[in-house]
Amino acid sequence: MDHRELMRQLHTPADTKIVLWVMDGLGGLPLTPGGKTELETASTPNLDALARRGLCGLSVPVAPGITPGSGPSHLALFGYDPVACEIGRGVMEVLGIDFALQAEDVAARGNFCTVDDAGLVTDRRAGRISTEQGAKLCRLLQEIEVPGVQVFVLPVREHRFGLVLRGPGLDPRLSDTDPQAVGKPPLELQALVPEAEATARLARQWLEQAYRVLASHHPANSLLLRGFSQDPALPKMADVYGLKAAAIASYPMYRGLAKLVGMEVLQTGPTFADEIATLEANWDRFDFFYLHLKYTDSRGEDGDFDAKVTVIEEADSFLPRILALGPDVLVVTADHSTPARLKGHSWHPVPTILFSEVCRADQVVEFTENACANGALGLFPAVDIMPLAMANAGRLAKFGA
Amino acid sequence: MDHRELMRQLHTPADTKIVLWVMDGLGGLPLTPGGKTELETASTPNLDALARRGLCGLSVPVAPGITPGSGPSHLALFGYDPVACEIGRGVMEVLGIDFALQAEDVAARGNFCTVDDAGLVTDRRAGRISTEQGAKLCRLLQEIEVPGVQVFVLPVREHRFGLVLRGPGLDPRLSDTDPQAVGKPPLELQALVPEAEATARLARQWLEQAYRVLASHHPANSLLLRGFSQDPALPKMADVYGLKAAAIASYPMYRGLAKLVGMEVLQTGPTFADEIATLEANWDRFDFFYLHLKYTDSRGEDGDFDAKVTVIEEADSFLPRILALGPDVLVVTADHSTPARLKGHSWHPVPTILFSEVCRADQVVEFTENACANGALGLFPAVDIMPLAMANAGRLAKFGA
Repeated sequence: MDHRELMRQLHTPADTKIVLWVMDGLGGLPLTPGGKTELETASTPNLDALARRGLCGLSVPVAPGITPGSGPSHLALFGYDPVACEIGRGVMEVLGIDFALQAEDVAARGNFCTVDDAGLVTDRRAGRISTEQGAKLCRLLQEIEVPGVQVFVLPVREHRFGLVLRGPGLDPRLSDTDPQAVGKPPLELQALVPEAEATARLARQWLEQAYRVLASHHPANSLLLRGFSQDPALPKMADVYGLKAAAIASYPMYRGLAKLVGMEVLQTGPTFADEIATLEANWDRFDFFYLHLKYTDSRGEDGDFDAKVTVIEEADSFLPRILALGPDVLVVTADHSTPARLKGHSWHPVPTILFSEVCRADQVVEFTENACANGALGLFPAVDIMPLAMANAGRLAKFGA
Repeated sequence: MDHRELMRQLHTPADTKIVLWVMDGLGGLPLTPGGKTELETASTPNLDALARRGLCGLSVPVAPGITPGSGPSHLALFGYDPVACEIGRGVMEVLGIDFALQAEDVAARGNFCTVDDAGLVTDRRAGRISTEQGAKLCRLLQEIEVPGVQVFVLPVREHRFGLVLRGPGLDPRLSDTDPQAVGKPPLELQALVPEAEATARLARQWLEQAYRVLASHHPANSLLLRGFSQDPALPKMADVYGLKAAAIASYPMYRGLAKLVGMEVLQTGPTFADEIATLEANWDRFDFFYLHLKYTDSRGEDGDFDAKVTVIEEADSFLPRILALGPDVLVVTADHSTPARLKGHSWHPVPTILFSEVCRADQVVEFTENACANGALGLFPAVDIMPLAMANAGRLAKFGA
């Protein structure tokens, strides 16, 4: 019996509220060894005070040494085994543009690419055409009709797009057409299992027409598909935890991930101030709030250490408004680290505070990576956060007699 | 290969003794945030000295956030996976009254209840009748005879009793009759699998007569059964660890749990002083002693912070007598936390000391929750305690070449 099955058996109603505040990519690194991380550099009086009252630790997003994408790292925060519950690349791509994916839709990630006269790929990204050019080509491809299936061609950014097939009995077990190298032709799209033959035929019909449409649009004179996948049909948070859960996230991908686990996605604006206002406006309607701050990650990805420090300091200034709502449990954590020094996600564990009246506070007095390393939660798997939050919210019955 | 299978393969004889001292429900909480826990409040000079010489940590009874019953939390302390090795509610109930359960007996937990003229349950606990009244009704029910099976009706407390069926080929896979709500009739007892049909027929024969006997005994004019179960047939400690193991526990349920893993249960008196005398008197006869102190949990359940502090201080005063026996390994721990503030079991991890001459002592200098959080054992699963104790006792061979 796994973690999630225990939650399903033990959850019990309570009039308590949990806030899971995810500061995306919060964990960092010093720019030079021996220096301070972004979080250590930032002045965070409110978070430090919360660390003093709470229980701290370093959470491991997926497994030691593993640098996660946003999908697996968020699944872990929601309490789902991030290795067992895989979300396909195609699904992630269309979640990232707020597409209303239906349960049986088959989604793939697409790239416009360049092929030569022999049909061999010379540039897998078609010279990174502009987002406008990509959108124009998507509109052309949207004209293609294949009997028996509805096809959506969804612009993403530059050379990237999403392809969604909608129709009865579709099967996502299809091979990629992306050869993952130049000097080779796009691969033949094939069914990976006999049950997917019909879907493969429909997809090939679409592809034949798409190749013809694109042929005259050099450098984007062909396309590559990969990561055919479907909504993974995860158990929903209402079922696993008995929680009425809401998501507040200004970026579409995080709204999409929250939808996969059954959260209600709340309308919000682009800033964190908008998100806090949304939290306040909806406080009475839900038991659980997933509150996502994107910009810590964005500035880490930019490699802009100082800007990430500033985002952290701004975030700190909003904490009193969250606390003023009186959450029974407040978790402050991240999905993964995004050190400015590395300009990308990393494997480093994530500073985390769990606060409740009955959390049994430890001796940590500031919110930094090194202080959290000495917290009573120790170095712990991120997938443990939800069970701990549920316990602290009085929402779990005793296990066994 | 699990934990226990490794132990089975690697255990090796040694002339060493292990004491596992379980202070039931030891872990606590401050009464107000920022204050001290029961253990932090208590003066424990002997335990502090042991912490200084030993290796400390916080053990997680079953899993993060999970509040365990006594069954699963003790199985973990004995080194058995507490989720995989489930002990049924009926078995726990009759262990709690020292009933000598046999391997093929089927046990259920019973409640006397009140039904109205339409046969609908109006009070699932029959107004919590007195223990004397409950015992009198059990004696009446004990008169019922069902051909082919021996039936024991065992008073427990107030409206609670245990029912045990003894006979050849019985199967415990039977449904509860407890509807778990008022306004409904007791449920029909049914076999959950075809193999249990014969047992279900015998149980229904008993039930029909029991309903007739009780009809005139309002408010206890009916009964409800749940948790039909059998001895889980766990591997015994002699086999898993090669230990000759004894249990010293003044409360029946803990003796019963110890019996399930093959410990010899020693006669003892009701006080901890009695238990220590029993330990001393039997020191030469066993390799392993499970020593159980109940009253830390009892005072926590009562919500009596000060009384729990006093129990801890008294327990501390007995430590020199245990050490005077010269155990090679002494573990001081608990099955779970029972904070007076919560008046019940909780999920909080448990302060633990492992002491031996070769334990590699850490820098912890007092026995408190927060000090143990900084111990070298860190936050660790309770199921690891037995392998560590075995290693420190020189009772495990090398794994692999």
